[in-house]
Amino acid sequence: MAEAAVEVVAIGDELLLGATVDANGAWLGRRLGTVGVRVARRATVGDVAADIRDAVTEALERTGAVICTGGLGPTPDDLTKPVVASIFGRELVLDDALLAALYRRFEERGIRMAANNRTQAEVPAGAIIFPNPRGTAPGLCLEDEQGRFAILLPGVPAEMRAIVDGSVIDYLVRRWPDRPGPILHRTVRTTGIPESTLAQRIDDLLPTFEPLTVAFLPGVSGVDVRLTSWGGLPEAEAAPRLDAADAALSERLGAHVYGRNEQDLVDVVSERLVAAGLTLSLAESCTGGLIAKRLTDRPGASRFLLAGIVSYSNDVKVELLGVRPETLRAHGAVSGETAREMAEGVRERTGARAGLSVTGIAGPEGGTETKPVGTVWIAAAVDGATEVRHLRLPGDRAEVRERGAQAALALLLSLIPPSEAA
Amino acid sequence: MAEAAVEVVAIGDELLLGATVDANGAWLGRRLGTVGVRVARRATVGDVAADIRDAVTEALERTGAVICTGGLGPTPDDLTKPVVASIFGRELVLDDALLAALYRRFEERGIRMAANNRTQAEVPAGAIIFPNPRGTAPGLCLEDEQGRFAILLPGVPAEMRAIVDGSVIDYLVRRWPDRPGPILHRTVRTTGIPESTLAQRIDDLLPTFEPLTVAFLPGVSGVDVRLTSWGGLPEAEAAPRLDAADAALSERLGAHVYGRNEQDLVDVVSERLVAAGLTLSLAESCTGGLIAKRLTDRPGASRFLLAGIVSYSNDVKVELLGVRPETLRAHGAVSGETAREMAEGVRERTGARAGLSVTGIAGPEGGTETKPVGTVWIAAAVDGATEVRHLRLPGDRAEVRERGAQAALALLLSLIPPSEAA
Repeated sequence: MAEAAVEVVAIGDELLLGATVDANGAWLGRRLGTVGVRVARRATVGDVAADIRDAVTEALERTGAVICTGGLGPTPDDLTKPVVASIFGRELVLDDALLAALYRRFEERGIRMAANNRTQAEVPAGAIIFPNPRGTAPGLCLEDEQGRFAILLPGVPAEMRAIVDGSVIDYLVRRWPDRPGPILHRTVRTTGIPESTLAQRIDDLLPTFEPLTVAFLPGVSGVDVRLTSWGGLPEAEAAPRLDAADAALSERLGAHVYGRNEQDLVDVVSERLVAAGLTLSLAESCTGGLIAKRLTDRPGASRFLLAGIVSYSNDVKVELLGVRPETLRAHGAVSGETAREMAEGVRERTGARAGLSVTGIAGPEGGTETKPVGTVWIAAAVDGATEVRHLRLPGDRAEVRERGAQAALALLLSLIPPSEAA
Repeated sequence: MAEAAVEVVAIGDELLLGATVDANGAWLGRRLGTVGVRVARRATVGDVAADIRDAVTEALERTGAVICTGGLGPTPDDLTKPVVASIFGRELVLDDALLAALYRRFEERGIRMAANNRTQAEVPAGAIIFPNPRGTAPGLCLEDEQGRFAILLPGVPAEMRAIVDGSVIDYLVRRWPDRPGPILHRTVRTTGIPESTLAQRIDDLLPTFEPLTVAFLPGVSGVDVRLTSWGGLPEAEAAPRLDAADAALSERLGAHVYGRNEQDLVDVVSERLVAAGLTLSLAESCTGGLIAKRLTDRPGASRFLLAGIVSYSNDVKVELLGVRPETLRAHGAVSGETAREMAEGVRERTGARAGLSVTGIAGPEGGTETKPVGTVWIAAAVDGATEVRHLRLPGDRAEVRERGAQAALALLLSLIPPSEAA
């Protein structure tokens, strides 16, 4: 077992029937990759003893290392534990400590434990027990004399992940001290710059990043630039290389970069508004509450958000936002002038320091020759100054709305004055 | 090959690395199930010729029928076609019709075709070609003299699904005329009734549904009741049995049933508002625009939606919605009285016939002993009448918001007068 590689066997009729999408396999691939352990192959079988036996035996013979997910519950169709125990020639024995913990767990919830749960405390003789902080079925690890091993994990994603993070990673890392470097990613998130322009602007930097690879991932929120170290570098070298590449990209792209990895534009806008002491109100037409919804998905939006107005009718634009009827008549609801008056109006009417507006045609109906579907105007009014932008957005209704919301948030971000703290 | 069963082999490094979650496997399980074909096993391998060869050969020997997804593109890491061709002892030959179609496709887009795309027109000699209406790589099917077969499909989900729907299902159905009945589901969607109450209320019906099984699927939108025929009945019997069980459930549960299968509550509410000729305005506090966003996700919301107001501050509740300061002082922003004045206020201020409001504590902060996190008040005002409801919702911030929005929509639905057409 020179190579740090495992096979994954996912067990469960619901996976083959398609009632459940197996997200565990992809998660394990990513998680093990971060410590330089490769997933060499995956198999998915139903709750059938012979199929589980075949898949695990093949994986042990081929790769010598297997992680099973699923089939560890207390019901008769949960076969993973007895089948794998018999492959390793072990009996199932009752573990007193596990049984006591199981009783405590049910007691704490004021539930009488059903008798079939006792099987949860049975383990193959000699197995290593990995505690499950999220549920009743512990992780188990069986090893044979040739150094081959099988790790059994529950299929419930939260439980599986907790056991991997808490125990399995340590076990694998100790087992393969000489494994290759980790697979590490860094995502630099940009908005307001098309993929082709972005690629051109950083073209000369890419060779200097090697052996890191660069992928451009365009989406409705903008283009993500993903830097990856694929295991060729040890961790102590990979991390600083990613930092350096990130810094070079950020310097080159300036305000187009709004965050990193999982960081969302609404998080960045929220933090910056609070830091600058600004209050915000929204006037949304085609985005229909999407920006308000995204800002209030996070707790703490009440620190800066005063009001959001979804102005679907022209009357509402006039009465609640103070858009002038002449403006609507002369330029239409989808125009820069209307966007400006919406942003300034919602700001004034609600006493906010910043106002943000979106008006456009999300489709699929409503487009005209001069204002096709995807025509969107956005405006941000911060204190005395208002900026207006015209957008022509590609995609279907959902995409036009997402892109419009993202562009509006990016425009607002560019107008938030730096806080004293920053 | 008496049994109508296939194995699925998914091919691609990105699947093992976890960059992509394989949703194709679950989709195939469901889709083939609808015509009585079972997925017996799945394997996932990387872009490695030996691994693809092993996995496909094993599946052919075991089950005699295999569907491969992925690895059909024009780049050098796309190995599925040559490897499977060699398993069947076939050469790759250029198909003139495919090549011509390929040139046309690029021409139509005004792009000059890169030379490596020519490989897309190469097929194993004697293969059946399944057209790809969504992309450049067609589906391919190879058969041997023992009646075993391998179907090769692209990994891009939209392309894979289009080829399965357009060609593969027909092929499998013709191949196995005596297969078992289809796996068919019917989901009856309910809201406003807890799982335990629901289960009790329909308990006596369940034995009459056999052999259909019943599953209760609680979620933030309410409890879905899923009826399934698992293949024991031929299609001609299964469909009427599902209809009858659906009708019995719907009669028993009355207004708690709002839709079927993929139907969403916002769709039902939207249709009913339009049919009844009602206009609607929203006043959202803790849901922060979520209801407005959901209603405007669909085109056509402008037929009934006048305005949505996200009133995050008390000042906005007073100034834009007309909530009385005394009400806020005496009962607080999260109260039945405030919910009532929000719904009635937004209705009057915007000239809508219906007003809907939500005010509550979504958490994680902001809860008190008398008003813990999850305390939500909703109100619906339709023409002259207003209904107010108090909710204590479980879950985290996102769940409280989703459940609150769903409950408000259900309350509104119960107050929409039947239209003349209905």
